[in-house]
Order: sequence, then C-alpha cells, then structure tokens
Amino acid sequence: MSKQELPIVDVCCAPLACEPLSESEAAELAPLFKAIADPVRLRLLSLIACHEGGEACVCDLTTAFDLTPPTISHHLKVLRQAGLIESERRGTWVYYWINPAVLARMSTLLTPASTAFAETA
Amino acid sequence: MSKQELPIVDVCCAPLACEPLSESEAAELAPLFKAIADPVRLRLLSLIACHEGGEACVCDLTTAFDLTPPTISHHLKVLRQAGLIESERRGTWVYYWINPAVLARMSTLLTPASTAFAETA
Repeated sequence: MSKQELPIVDVCCAPLACEPLSESEAAELAPLFKAIADPVRLRLLSLIACHEGGEACVCDLTTAFDLTPPTISHHLKVLRQAGLIESERRGTWVYYWINPAVLARMSTLLTPASTAFAETA
Repeated sequence: MSKQELPIVDVCCAPLACEPLSESEAAELAPLFKAIADPVRLRLLSLIACHEGGEACVCDLTTAFDLTPPTISHHLKVLRQAGLIESERRGTWVYYWINPAVLARMSTLLTPASTAFAETA
C-alpha cells in the first residue's frame, strides 16, 4: 500500500506518525494501554469483542478461564474503569460490551506510524 | 467510513473482532502493551516515529524531557527489549527507529474490533 492510498481516519487525536504526543496526551493514553497490558484482560477484551451480538454475559466469560469469579470480576473492573468496556446488569447477570471509540483511539495512535514506516524499513 | 472502504491489512494474527485471543497469544502480546503503558515511553515512541527520516538520535530524545539521560536510556531499553524499537550506535550517538511490524500487530489487534463495533454502537 502506498502512502497515497492510506485512508484518512477521522479521529480526535494526532496519529503517532504525524506529531509527537504531548505530555498531557501521553498521560491520558498510557493508562489505556496499561489496562490491556495483562494477558487475562487482553483475552477478556477479545472475548467480549468477539462475542455474538457484541456483548458478553459475565457467565460466558468466567467459564473461559481457570480463575475464580472474583478474579475475573477484578479484571473486568480494571477494563471498565479505564473506559475500555461498559456494563449493565440485567436480572441475574452483568453484561459487558467494548467501548469502540476508546479502542479506535488506541489503534489509530499506532496504525499510521506502522503503515507509513513499513515502507521505509 | 463504511466497512467497504476499510483497507485489508495483511498480518499474521487474528484481529480482535474475529476470534478470541488464545492464552499463548495474549501472553505474547501483553508485554508489548505493557512497554507502552507509560507516558514517557509513549512519548519516546511517538518522538522516534515522527522524527525526520524515521530515526532519532538519543541526543534529540533527551532534550525533549525534563529527565536525566540515564532515565531516558532506561525507558529506551524497555522499548527495545519489547521489540518496539531498534537501535544502532554510529560514532558518538545511538540512533533509534520503530519496528513497524510489531506496531502493526498491536494496532491490527485493536482496529477491526473498534471499527466493526463503531457502526453498531
């Protein structure tokens, strides 16, 4: 893919290849990456994102791990507090879905740089 | 941007929206996100990625922070050990550039999910 063919992505923040992050931007973004800097949370996020209908019941998530429900709940709380997922209780269970805007911001930050620099590497 | 206009990215690993990460994939990817889960390292990465010619001298990087050169060196070492950047000494200075394949893998993991779910949110 040539640089001319790169899609223009309409996002709030400057992509990595265009302009260095400011101190405040970096301070805001680092906790988002910290929230997924854990294998269990990364798998939880992918399980939620891949789940049919775009949301997953906590009952589906706990069965995928050899961990106690309180441990899974802790990791889900970290993801939720970072803003990566949202949740709602419906009857017995809590349901989770990803926050697409936050994930888009994170991926966009990394995408243009990797695409642009792939050609010169 | 509609789904039809999305570029097809040729990468090694399944995007987040397609298939949940396996335990081994998550264990391999989590340290990459951990390496950028720090404001200084995130700014260093963006400074290197944005630098003219795609590489930055350590002398350019240290001046951008109110931190000691050993602290900057420590953060650069973390990024290098994670495989996010590469380096080479030339004369007095060490030069750094990003590893586009690793960044592409990280961004691709987050991109399809966020794009796919952005339309249904």
